[in-house]
Amino acid sequence: MNMLDLIIKKKNGESLSKEEIGYMIQGYTAGNIPDYQMSAMLMAICFCGMDDEETTFLTMAMTDSGDRLDLSRINGIKVDKHSTGGVGDKVTLIAAPVVAALGVPVAKMSGRGLGFTGGTIDKLESIPGFRTDISEEEFIRFVNTDGISIMSQTAELAPADRLLYALRDVTGTVDSIPLIASSIMSKKIASGSDAIVLDVTVGSGAFMKTEKEARELASCMVRIGKLAGLETRALITDMDEPLGRFIGNSLEVMEAIEVLKGKGPEDTREVSLEIASQMLLAGGRAKDSDEAKALIDGCISDGRALDALCRLIKNQGGNTSVTDDTTLFKKAGIIKDLTAEDDGFVNAIHCEMVGNCVKLLGGGRQVKGEEIDPSVGLELLKKKGDPLEKGDVLARIFACDEEKLEAAEKLLSRAYVIGREKVQKGPLILGIIS
Amino acid sequence: MNMLDLIIKKKNGESLSKEEIGYMIQGYTAGNIPDYQMSAMLMAICFCGMDDEETTFLTMAMTDSGDRLDLSRINGIKVDKHSTGGVGDKVTLIAAPVVAALGVPVAKMSGRGLGFTGGTIDKLESIPGFRTDISEEEFIRFVNTDGISIMSQTAELAPADRLLYALRDVTGTVDSIPLIASSIMSKKIASGSDAIVLDVTVGSGAFMKTEKEARELASCMVRIGKLAGLETRALITDMDEPLGRFIGNSLEVMEAIEVLKGKGPEDTREVSLEIASQMLLAGGRAKDSDEAKALIDGCISDGRALDALCRLIKNQGGNTSVTDDTTLFKKAGIIKDLTAEDDGFVNAIHCEMVGNCVKLLGGGRQVKGEEIDPSVGLELLKKKGDPLEKGDVLARIFACDEEKLEAAEKLLSRAYVIGREKVQKGPLILGIIS
Repeated sequence: MNMLDLIIKKKNGESLSKEEIGYMIQGYTAGNIPDYQMSAMLMAICFCGMDDEETTFLTMAMTDSGDRLDLSRINGIKVDKHSTGGVGDKVTLIAAPVVAALGVPVAKMSGRGLGFTGGTIDKLESIPGFRTDISEEEFIRFVNTDGISIMSQTAELAPADRLLYALRDVTGTVDSIPLIASSIMSKKIASGSDAIVLDVTVGSGAFMKTEKEARELASCMVRIGKLAGLETRALITDMDEPLGRFIGNSLEVMEAIEVLKGKGPEDTREVSLEIASQMLLAGGRAKDSDEAKALIDGCISDGRALDALCRLIKNQGGNTSVTDDTTLFKKAGIIKDLTAEDDGFVNAIHCEMVGNCVKLLGGGRQVKGEEIDPSVGLELLKKKGDPLEKGDVLARIFACDEEKLEAAEKLLSRAYVIGREKVQKGPLILGIIS
Repeated sequence: MNMLDLIIKKKNGESLSKEEIGYMIQGYTAGNIPDYQMSAMLMAICFCGMDDEETTFLTMAMTDSGDRLDLSRINGIKVDKHSTGGVGDKVTLIAAPVVAALGVPVAKMSGRGLGFTGGTIDKLESIPGFRTDISEEEFIRFVNTDGISIMSQTAELAPADRLLYALRDVTGTVDSIPLIASSIMSKKIASGSDAIVLDVTVGSGAFMKTEKEARELASCMVRIGKLAGLETRALITDMDEPLGRFIGNSLEVMEAIEVLKGKGPEDTREVSLEIASQMLLAGGRAKDSDEAKALIDGCISDGRALDALCRLIKNQGGNTSVTDDTTLFKKAGIIKDLTAEDDGFVNAIHCEMVGNCVKLLGGGRQVKGEEIDPSVGLELLKKKGDPLEKGDVLARIFACDEEKLEAAEKLLSRAYVIGREKVQKGPLILGIIS
């Protein structure tokens, strides 16, 4: 077997076998196949695609390129959750305690964010004292005693994916459904769960810009998951404007706490609880959607969901009083309102711009390893479809320095598209694939 | 400008500008653009193609990556000739003296072969004493005094092409019409001629396997040539069986001498004289095909064509007596006949196998720089369509060692396809594009 033959085979539109894909991924990870051959292969895949079997073989070969987390010491069906990314996405902070409260064990390993805002790990670390660098022993113990733990990724899961992603990034081969799907799924499968619920976002703040692409990616990942023997479900959700009212690390934790108390913005509630519902179904905890919804409503109204969050915080060294007293979070030094210059309606909020705005404020990373400021962020008081009168506050900016504030304010005012006519908001959940 | 953007642009099916292509070729030749980005680009070009303008920009950028031969000291319209390769292709050895005899200056720089048999340079070197490593001064002087000189390539013409070809070879990106066309044309244009006649071969012994591909490549190169300001013409010729009766370095020189004496096999005559005719038209020496053919017939029958070959041989140190006495060529030690095992008809001769047969005998190179044996080769006594009786000699093998003979014989017997029915020979010249 040699890589040149495999490139030509794929270029001619043929399918690669399990052995061929294994040879390619092992050889590339070991440094025996050079970058220039792999990049030619990646480009050929962009044009010719991969069928479900090939994509599954690729996923499993990448999964097998490194460590695989062993969660066998945890009882029950472990359900993981993954989002393809968005702005204001605090879904994990809500769905994880909800399903943990209902008896589905949550053993979640997360990475740090290199997007607009921090990742789940960064958000949790905005809680005073919260440790995400716990040991694997502690991690498993917490899940077995309290049903929930979230730790930052230590072992390198799917190292082939890291190598391939770095190459795709510089060779124009990022936007291929089988390559994206296998990249996500290889890491999820290596994380050791039994079932996976995927949130595939679509819109100006998402990687997938059209619903068609998002559906394709979601279907592809669900098929891979099933072929790999994991119960897999996917939601397709709108990310054309930010999710919820708050964006920023500690601000999003506060919003999540509100939702766990039965309050909070409607859109955050809708997506988070649908994800939780799918996790219960995937974990075999509910027979159908109605049962799942009833269970979720119950555990929020009687406080069990918030309790689960408190146990997570307490086990990992955090101050549980934050759930009652938000003044315990680090506060941003400067707060400034952005106001409407005219009457009208919010027609759109450019989601990517809003994300970059938080990044500018210091709430996200420009480069890997950078410190982020948990206190900064935005509160969006007006969202798509809302009527405006001149002088109304559109959004509130939480900043730590005047220069960054100014840059963020300029960008945020461009993110808001104001018109004379009211526009209709579309549905938030565009589809469920299982 | 950066390479990643250019890859994505090409991948999206857009055309690259002159500046973009120049940036890419200069950057790659200088080592500033890595192989892995160039191979992704090459694969994208394989799928998306290049329009005529882009292909011309690419050709010129590769031409400009190195030296360009200055033939301005030679009077008249210099006409070059190039074949995409075949087996038994001794066309240059015939067409060059013919057009030189008729006053079209032939200043031809050739490379050594890395194909089935040697290249033109290797074939000429089978003439005792013949030097191909003459200086550029001598080269120009010979053309100005005697109308003809052929030297081995000294200066590196189009170094970008060498780099790109090496990368294409290992990344499955060889078979792209714009890449093949620009590779050939960049070297031809760098060779300094005013006009180019191309022989695009098609069939089992050629790089292009179908007439459609050959026509596409020929049209593409003619368009590039014209856009680059060179009179360019192309023949499409059949290479489904070897050309002529002899294959092997000195054997092909002998056949060429026969044709220059008005004899030799009909197929070699037909292709060589049509190429010569197109060279006369391209060089403005004849108004039309009829005039060209009359001129060619005249210079062969009165011996001027053979004289031109003799002047070429004499100037470059060779023994001109070879044109009368073939015993002066190095002789193969072993000669063996391959005979027909049954009555029937030759239905086909697998041209690639015949070429590999000569390579096995030592008449071609396995790797660059290897010595070749000028004496070995084949004489094909039976060709496609010929009737056979059991025991007829199909072919004669000229070898220098028993082991190589045995391997060659085995392969050659597989190359002959014998059937019970007579098959029709198709036309040899499939088209002329100008």
